[in-house]
Amino acid sequence: MQKLEHIGIAVKNLSDSIPVFEQLLNTGCYKEEEVDSESVRTAFFAVGDHKVELLESTDPDGVIARFIAKKGEGIHHIAFAVSNLEEEMKRLAEAGFILLDEKPRRGADNKLVCFYTRRTPIRC
Amino acid sequence: MQKLEHIGIAVKNLSDSIPVFEQLLNTGCYKEEEVDSESVRTAFFAVGDHKVELLESTDPDGVIARFIAKKGEGIHHIAFAVSNLEEEMKRLAEAGFILLDEKPRRGADNKLVCFYTRRTPIRC
Repeated sequence: MQKLEHIGIAVKNLSDSIPVFEQLLNTGCYKEEEVDSESVRTAFFAVGDHKVELLESTDPDGVIARFIAKKGEGIHHIAFAVSNLEEEMKRLAEAGFILLDEKPRRGADNKLVCFYTRRTPIRC
Repeated sequence: MQKLEHIGIAVKNLSDSIPVFEQLLNTGCYKEEEVDSESVRTAFFAVGDHKVELLESTDPDGVIARFIAKKGEGIHHIAFAVSNLEEEMKRLAEAGFILLDEKPRRGADNKLVCFYTRRTPIRC
């Protein structure tokens, strides 16, 4: 793991949450982006050289909508930057982590991503 | 907010979780510390210039134990570093955030801390 890349926070809707996080972080949202492949609308904030990403579901049966239904609004994931994503996926799979993507795919902010978990994922 | 300081993750017990996070983060736990004032045992990992903190409750009715009972193991808080904690507490209180500490207090890793939330905290 090279560094913490961002923290992803599930929210019911961006229009309510963006002003809250602008107050909290004392900085404006610098980008909103829709990611069709993940059924989310996202909003980004910079904190030092890191990012906070808010995620609103665009699909009532999407991953973020189901996360909120089960756990409420809150932190959904931590993203780490790595120098070689495919090598890191192999290392984590061998260590027993469950990869939710078989291969790297395009996520928000033009990044290649792979989600993983230690538990049976909510989507199953 | 100057920067992300650490991510705090509630776990049932450190002895099970430390090896998992050592595998995940590909680095060893560099410090374990008990914080009596918060009824927790903590374990720290370095990722780039940031920290991941695992928190195990030492009190079955402690904040971390109640968090796990309600939501399961998972991310409990994000800590931000600020240049002037008392000024930041004043700013957040005026913006409508709920401060869980009336004044800065000593937390883990020899840091002055103040916890806050937007919602009615679990402890109430």
